Amino acid sequence: MESNRRPGGRSARVRDAVRQATLAELAEHGYAGLTVENVAERSGVHKTTVYRRWGGVDGLISDALDLAGQEPWPVPDTGDIRGDLRGIVQLVRGGFADPGLGPVSSAFVAAAMQSPEAARALHAFFAARHEQSADVVRRAVARGELPAGVDAAEVIRVAVAPVYYRLFVAHEPVSERDADRAADAALAAARAGVLGGTAEG
Amino acid sequence: MESNRRPGGRSARVRDAVRQATLAELAEHGYAGLTVENVAERSGVHKTTVYRRWGGVDGLISDALDLAGQEPWPVPDTGDIRGDLRGIVQLVRGGFADPGLGPVSSAFVAAAMQSPEAARALHAFFAARHEQSADVVRRAVARGELPAGVDAAEVIRVAVAPVYYRLFVAHEPVSERDADRAADAALAAARAGVLGGTAEG
Repeated sequence: MESNRRPGGRSARVRDAVRQATLAELAEHGYAGLTVENVAERSGVHKTTVYRRWGGVDGLISDALDLAGQEPWPVPDTGDIRGDLRGIVQLVRGGFADPGLGPVSSAFVAAAMQSPEAARALHAFFAARHEQSADVVRRAVARGELPAGVDAAEVIRVAVAPVYYRLFVAHEPVSERDADRAADAALAAARAGVLGGTAEG
Repeated sequence: MESNRRPGGRSARVRDAVRQATLAELAEHGYAGLTVENVAERSGVHKTTVYRRWGGVDGLISDALDLAGQEPWPVPDTGDIRGDLRGIVQLVRGGFADPGLGPVSSAFVAAAMQSPEAARALHAFFAARHEQSADVVRRAVARGELPAGVDAAEVIRVAVAPVYYRLFVAHEPVSERDADRAADAALAAARAGVLGGTAEG
């Protein structure tokens, strides 16, 4: 068996090099500055190979998002829903504030606004994130902190949405307190029964 | 007095033509397809004039946003805070769903992700929108529906954020029910006292 046919062989190494180069280029130059030429040069993979396997910039973005989606997402487990929701929203806030991660994450959001292929990839990324994060809501229901029947993904959306709204729509800063308030707002809504289920006690 | 020095004279007509042409080009081609050449041709204003007065694409966007910010924003006054907040969120949802308005509004959000000048203009646009919309919260406080000291702009942010999050981040559809739930969630949070003020009752 040739080495480029084994999992982890030459083909996988090429893919990994290209995905890492795409993330690095996005961090440095953003979506608007991403080119196949730069990714090819940075990864050491020939330009014609990049075009053949990825098609172009949008294919590179989608594949890099797939890699980003496999990064560990440390869903908090603090023992109560308030702490868990605050933890999730602070993870989001902190990710965008991080000098390494922030520009890449922002570039994905920008890319998805311009490219339907990137939008589909980002949609899949967030569907997976919502599903993982929903664990904190399901545990809260099991502990009796939230009403049964609450829409777990919707609690997560409502909790994180104000952070994204400030960053990418209203272009306002996001403080730690802003993030906590967003989490607390989602919790109050879930407890009131407006996100599915019925109001608590 | 020469006609091009009167308010509403030649200079104002040129500006209006260029701003209208920018909005029309954004509706048809989005931010990525906006060029000074196309705006000049569409408006009948010479390209060198457009470059001299607007500087380029980012200046055109900022000026068009200024025009968009002057469009009537019919803040609801239904007599209760639930109806008013739902009305505001449905206005946002409906605006993006509108075949004429939606693409232009989306182009502004996309532009602000790529251009600091457009981001500043969009920030100012939303600051004005928050301030106008906050009237519904202030009226609710006056009627005793919400606690005194509630952060009116934050109630508006929390209400509209899930719509923007679905549209521009998670790339999910937004139903009328989704919009109502977002409004109801903000109301529940405001009533619980987590958006400033203290809890009701």
